[in-house]
Amino acid sequence: MATSLLSRQLVLSLQQNLRLTAPGCRYVSKAAAKTQMEFEYDGPSMKTEVPGPRSKELTKQLGEIQNVGAINFFCNYEESRGNYLVDVDGNRMLDVYTQISSIPIGYPAEFPMFTSFSSQSAFVNRPALGIMPPENFPEKLAESLLSVAPSGMSRVQTMACGSCSNENAYKAMFIWYRNKERGHNIPSDEDVSSCMINQSPGCPDFSILSFMGGFHGRTMGCLATTHSKAIHKLDVPSFDWPIAPFPKLKYPLEEFTRENAQEEARCLEEVEDLIVQWRQKGRPVAGIVIEPIQAEGGDNHATPDFFKKLRNIAHKHGSAFHVDEVQTGGGATGKFWAHEHWGMDDPADIVSFSKKMLTGGFYHKDELQADKAYRIFNTWMGDPSKNLFLAEVLNVIRRENLLEEVTRSGKTLLQGLYQLQDQYPNLLSSARGQGTFCAIDIRDDATRNSILLKARDKGVLLGGCGDRSIRFRPALVFKEYHVHMFLNVFSDVLAEHN
Amino acid sequence: MATSLLSRQLVLSLQQNLRLTAPGCRYVSKAAAKTQMEFEYDGPSMKTEVPGPRSKELTKQLGEIQNVGAINFFCNYEESRGNYLVDVDGNRMLDVYTQISSIPIGYPAEFPMFTSFSSQSAFVNRPALGIMPPENFPEKLAESLLSVAPSGMSRVQTMACGSCSNENAYKAMFIWYRNKERGHNIPSDEDVSSCMINQSPGCPDFSILSFMGGFHGRTMGCLATTHSKAIHKLDVPSFDWPIAPFPKLKYPLEEFTRENAQEEARCLEEVEDLIVQWRQKGRPVAGIVIEPIQAEGGDNHATPDFFKKLRNIAHKHGSAFHVDEVQTGGGATGKFWAHEHWGMDDPADIVSFSKKMLTGGFYHKDELQADKAYRIFNTWMGDPSKNLFLAEVLNVIRRENLLEEVTRSGKTLLQGLYQLQDQYPNLLSSARGQGTFCAIDIRDDATRNSILLKARDKGVLLGGCGDRSIRFRPALVFKEYHVHMFLNVFSDVLAEHN
Repeated sequence: MATSLLSRQLVLSLQQNLRLTAPGCRYVSKAAAKTQMEFEYDGPSMKTEVPGPRSKELTKQLGEIQNVGAINFFCNYEESRGNYLVDVDGNRMLDVYTQISSIPIGYPAEFPMFTSFSSQSAFVNRPALGIMPPENFPEKLAESLLSVAPSGMSRVQTMACGSCSNENAYKAMFIWYRNKERGHNIPSDEDVSSCMINQSPGCPDFSILSFMGGFHGRTMGCLATTHSKAIHKLDVPSFDWPIAPFPKLKYPLEEFTRENAQEEARCLEEVEDLIVQWRQKGRPVAGIVIEPIQAEGGDNHATPDFFKKLRNIAHKHGSAFHVDEVQTGGGATGKFWAHEHWGMDDPADIVSFSKKMLTGGFYHKDELQADKAYRIFNTWMGDPSKNLFLAEVLNVIRRENLLEEVTRSGKTLLQGLYQLQDQYPNLLSSARGQGTFCAIDIRDDATRNSILLKARDKGVLLGGCGDRSIRFRPALVFKEYHVHMFLNVFSDVLAEHN
Repeated sequence: MATSLLSRQLVLSLQQNLRLTAPGCRYVSKAAAKTQMEFEYDGPSMKTEVPGPRSKELTKQLGEIQNVGAINFFCNYEESRGNYLVDVDGNRMLDVYTQISSIPIGYPAEFPMFTSFSSQSAFVNRPALGIMPPENFPEKLAESLLSVAPSGMSRVQTMACGSCSNENAYKAMFIWYRNKERGHNIPSDEDVSSCMINQSPGCPDFSILSFMGGFHGRTMGCLATTHSKAIHKLDVPSFDWPIAPFPKLKYPLEEFTRENAQEEARCLEEVEDLIVQWRQKGRPVAGIVIEPIQAEGGDNHATPDFFKKLRNIAHKHGSAFHVDEVQTGGGATGKFWAHEHWGMDDPADIVSFSKKMLTGGFYHKDELQADKAYRIFNTWMGDPSKNLFLAEVLNVIRRENLLEEVTRSGKTLLQGLYQLQDQYPNLLSSARGQGTFCAIDIRDDATRNSILLKARDKGVLLGGCGDRSIRFRPALVFKEYHVHMFLNVFSDVLAEHN
């Protein structure tokens, strides 16, 4: 793959001259300046309400095949560019949601990678990676996932999606915990026979401790650790596993340090109590799973001090510590992994990822590697074509210094949100964020949803999270001038809701 | 996508003239004739032992990153063609295992589909399919998955892998069962609040009935229904769900009809007993999951009569009936779905798939559709580029009449296995199969494994299943002359083990 996935975008975005002043600048924001005009569009352009007639027609068609209750609209991905998503009715929207936070560097304009026969081969020949990988598999893992491995981790396992990644990470923790408990890795005859019928000791009554408000996926193991919305969990059998409170902090964090520290201490105490309780009831906590920022659950933050202490509690009680970076990973917080903000050399035993990483999977410390073959295994174990993409995406991130861009854009975004919050104190509260991974609370659920729709009609695509928050999840190519463009539209929409 | 994925192979394979007599024909098999010589290789070609030095070197490299206990060797997919897999040491093997049964029509030689910008776009722009699908999504679903929908099903949900497919199918059954139990689909306040902490009634104590020897995946819901090998399940917590015996039949089935019918009746009786027992202990059976042929568990067959009666038992007790066609689906049994051999208009409520279908997912009857948005949901919900591939693959299957080819090759294969079994009665037993989806039992585990390795050294790649079986899983382009080529090598290997 000699040429870059986004070579044209790369060249253009390096042209740092500001060419254009966006029309219609109002209120809070500076003139929106742009650098990518030949590649990107110069702003949103709305032709119909959203969803428009073509989207409605296609939604009806798809409704014959699937539940379409969650369909927003249909997209024209061929016409989408950079930060702009184009729908099938020709509406062009500034995308601050990016397919639920899963587009790393925007929508590309061309794909020179496909000119290479060997990369075409990788797309067509999907191997069973666990038994017969392609020749370049170790090299591509090194170029892609290992080049951004979290501190202390040199091992990684790819999987097809985020839920499978967490499921297998949980299994790795159970296997590790059980071998530690045994003192060796040789199962007894009773282990072997009882596991075949789902019974202990072969299938031990271990648990994973999770946090209220957390989201870790929707398969049954993951779902037992997901506690963000009832609709995800309703009617599905689950495990009796401990659930700790996640700190409910006040924002900005630096203005409420004492109260927030008390709240975090309360939660940490509860974590230790739960670990002891569950051990006593014969369901020891093999692992603790947590997001660095609870995303789906409402963009709930905690301080580095909280995570450091939690990490220590895991150590103290012999539980593995699993940081779920499926949504936070890949650069949107201004560091490649959100846990880097904690400043720890040994932040975790397992770090799982998906979304912006284009492939699912998890990093782990050496001792968390399954001791035998076929324990962490399935037919595909990921998709090597996604590793090729990721290697290209990481090249772009490095060459364009996108993490610095994100930090810069993020500061401007958060500053703008603070200003709007001051202007609309009855409407907005708790502006918060790291990098462009920002959020703000709205007065109530109904107003939040109305704001989301109004913003969309004005060409800005946003997503909600939690009960009444808006989450901002732009791609890493979201520049300061995109921030200003967004803030102008957002400000107009808020004025209509005051 | 104007051109076909395998256009060259297609043209060549339509040249039905027989050009070559394979050298070295021995014992059982007729002359191996071939039709695809310009596309395919003319036979295996071994240069080193397997794994060879380059594979060993790469395995060592990968060992720094992952557990490599299951790695067989590394592949050169660019050089692989049709039924031949080429490894990184230049060994060319007739592939009768096809990446754990997941390559539908062999390894392609060229990929004209990538010349189209719009299909390239589908590979690069991975949308969140549940909220913002591409314009051609309904059309591609219709062209691909719906064009081969099982009887009585017009709805399909894609997923990223087989385990996620079954997990979500189970969730669909739980949701359906609970709404049926409620008499409506409005959860109570207690349902909503209790589900958030993993407790009943919101997370009800429902169960899925599965069969001993079954394999349905490795995530925690799936794993609770998987009972093929201890290594899959060991040390992972599970659910207390009922496990019925799968019939242990004698082969050939038609020679033991009375004994087999008795065995099947015994198992069906046990199924009904378990359903009643689990209802009594407050864990009602929301669904029954079964493979049409237990694959991973040892290629265990049952008769159409068994499946018909099982289907009726599910009806009678109000449980959903889920047929897992992850390994059996896609044509290898000579029908597109193995359950078609049962001859039923209403064979199932849910049919799940993956592997040869290139995407995971499940078909379901209308009433099994989740009643609300975001219940069967995740970020990616499959990968639309795989639907494009599948549409092309299905075109090839139809135009080349590959299901007829499979039926023909399968008869020749099974006939050959019967002959070998007669010749080596102390070594071989229970030859069985549908289409090319065949298997045979070997005297013991050690001999089986030795045969697998010896066959590989002679250029034939096979896989094991169960305790001591060999499973045959060629691609759908495995012709009669490939069967003869295989039988010749297999015969030589058996002679060494007699």
